[in-house]
Amino acid sequence: MCTCGAPLLVNYDLEGVKKNLSPEDLKERTNTLWRYHELLPVEDEDNMVSLGEGMTPLVSLPQLGKDMSMKNLLMKDEGLIPTGTFKARGAAVGVSKAKEVGVKELAMPTNGNAGAAWALYASRAGLQSTVVMPDDAPKITRNEVASSGANLYLVNGLISDAGKIVGKAVKDHDLYDASTLKEPYRIEGKKTMGLEIAEQLNWKMPDVILYPTGGGVGLIGIYKALNELKEIGWVVGKLPRLVAVQATGCAPIVKAWEEGKSDSEFWNESETLAFGINVPKALGDFLVLDAIYKTDGCAIAIDDESMVQEQEKVARLEGSFVCPEGAAAFVATRRLREQGWIQEEETVVVLNTGAGIKYPDTVQVNPEMLEKDDVIRRVENVINK
Amino acid sequence: MCTCGAPLLVNYDLEGVKKNLSPEDLKERTNTLWRYHELLPVEDEDNMVSLGEGMTPLVSLPQLGKDMSMKNLLMKDEGLIPTGTFKARGAAVGVSKAKEVGVKELAMPTNGNAGAAWALYASRAGLQSTVVMPDDAPKITRNEVASSGANLYLVNGLISDAGKIVGKAVKDHDLYDASTLKEPYRIEGKKTMGLEIAEQLNWKMPDVILYPTGGGVGLIGIYKALNELKEIGWVVGKLPRLVAVQATGCAPIVKAWEEGKSDSEFWNESETLAFGINVPKALGDFLVLDAIYKTDGCAIAIDDESMVQEQEKVARLEGSFVCPEGAAAFVATRRLREQGWIQEEETVVVLNTGAGIKYPDTVQVNPEMLEKDDVIRRVENVINK
Repeated sequence: MCTCGAPLLVNYDLEGVKKNLSPEDLKERTNTLWRYHELLPVEDEDNMVSLGEGMTPLVSLPQLGKDMSMKNLLMKDEGLIPTGTFKARGAAVGVSKAKEVGVKELAMPTNGNAGAAWALYASRAGLQSTVVMPDDAPKITRNEVASSGANLYLVNGLISDAGKIVGKAVKDHDLYDASTLKEPYRIEGKKTMGLEIAEQLNWKMPDVILYPTGGGVGLIGIYKALNELKEIGWVVGKLPRLVAVQATGCAPIVKAWEEGKSDSEFWNESETLAFGINVPKALGDFLVLDAIYKTDGCAIAIDDESMVQEQEKVARLEGSFVCPEGAAAFVATRRLREQGWIQEEETVVVLNTGAGIKYPDTVQVNPEMLEKDDVIRRVENVINK
Repeated sequence: MCTCGAPLLVNYDLEGVKKNLSPEDLKERTNTLWRYHELLPVEDEDNMVSLGEGMTPLVSLPQLGKDMSMKNLLMKDEGLIPTGTFKARGAAVGVSKAKEVGVKELAMPTNGNAGAAWALYASRAGLQSTVVMPDDAPKITRNEVASSGANLYLVNGLISDAGKIVGKAVKDHDLYDASTLKEPYRIEGKKTMGLEIAEQLNWKMPDVILYPTGGGVGLIGIYKALNELKEIGWVVGKLPRLVAVQATGCAPIVKAWEEGKSDSEFWNESETLAFGINVPKALGDFLVLDAIYKTDGCAIAIDDESMVQEQEKVARLEGSFVCPEGAAAFVATRRLREQGWIQEEETVVVLNTGAGIKYPDTVQVNPEMLEKDDVIRRVENVINK
């Protein structure tokens, strides 16, 4: 971080990249986010820690689109990545750069998924890690962190409380602080979502990108990526309108946007089942708000009940079991379409930030129980050809 | 199925493929299993039901390899696929072909993951499905099936009991039977693992492939794929030795192989925490055994405790949180290396058939609990640069 306490961002020699790299060059490259290594901060290939992350599918959703009166609805499915969430991108690049600068042990607070990703990538890199997470963070992420061999602590509180404990540990034990935006490289990993969306749309930008926003690093990263692509001339024209989607139980960015402010206030007693976006005050809130304002985007809050309903709708109509955060972004899409803020013909990309399977307690199911000799009874037969 | 009750396999005009397709052609294609569509049974592109499945990473595991005295240990990571397990491959191709032949509703028994994949892909295709799973199958898979809108039933018994109920329902209600090997297309989807391994090794075959074996469709499929690639001249030489890995609590194929038999006997009171390979009698057992015999492979059973230990070892050394079935295959690799059956220099591919995050109850974790104002105490500080 800067000595003033503000986050640092990485700058590249974009003139150099423009001269020496073309989109055509990418075709022969690895199908991971490391295909963009000229736009990433890791210098030595030996330091690139990879488990095959990146180039997640950009999936067309015609049935859900129809249900929302939209003709070009797409999902960037970040469930198909190591650890099952987009946090793997920040971890892959962040851990790689930590390794490159000689870090031995990193520390971070987490709502679960980031800690899982960083602890596992740290193991892959041969680094030690210390992770502090709220007691009620998803159990699966606890398993991932513990299995990685990290020092895992639970806290009877929120991620902000975990953050305070990590802050003290960083000072007391000389650890590398990998908290959101306290090092500048995580955002570079998240940025690759923006690079991939542009490449997968054949270097055309969509009209709108909706992003479930906790710490907001992905949104900041996508904004940074698209600006860099503009500078090297790989995309042209207006940037997509960026939408920050939050939960009604934790919506500091939405409140700030509605009030036209440039940063947010701490959200007291925050609560939502979409654990990944339960962040009462993001360190990079001013960067998120700036990206929204600059792209004529907006911010919108979604209630938990609507998320759960939409999660089921996406599964029924498109066969994708998205995470609650992703479902929130789909509800936001639906609402903004209803309000006319999104037009029928616009190309809209929704970030599903993780696999629904990481949240076993979100869905309530009560199926019929049969004994071994039972038969399935139903009124009508199926007419199969 | 054949009228005699045996499974059918798909044959292709391989001479035609050999004439009209080259490995070079694949480079420009979609990064999913549909890149091999000439070797898949779906004829009309409109029937290809896709959520971005396939081309999962083939990850090098140098640290785990070192721990096993192996120089070329690779993992094909099937956790990075829709629904989080390799079952997505069979479902994508199987559901697509079902759609193509006009099916309206399919039915199947499952230990969880296959049912989740087929129910979700059926939704994507606009087909209805009926799924019967044991009561103690993983809860997450229950959520996936229910969310897809499938007719979900639990049975107080094993997958073989679920199979009997499905068999009756298929007859009573004219459903399409999508049980393992009761239709010939699932195997074609699974086959793509073999095609991808060959392509990712630049059309060289590895020396050994280890596969966690329940129904065994993947192993049969990989064997079929490599033989087809030989016929079209894309790979040459000896096929890899194929290894069927089972659990000591359910090892019918291992028993048959040890006794030199060509098919297996029903395994009574089967039990293992690796739910995906709890299959007491596989319909395609004779095909699995044939593939093992023909490639000078073997079959080996692993106890649950060793699986759990190896799962943690893979996470600690390589940062990958594999499923228990995948962990079983790693233990098998370790044992076969110790016995000298695998040589130090050999190229060995282990199939991790799914993401560890689908099994939240496998890992037992008891981390230290902190209060908000606590500090982390430790003996030594870290020397970070």
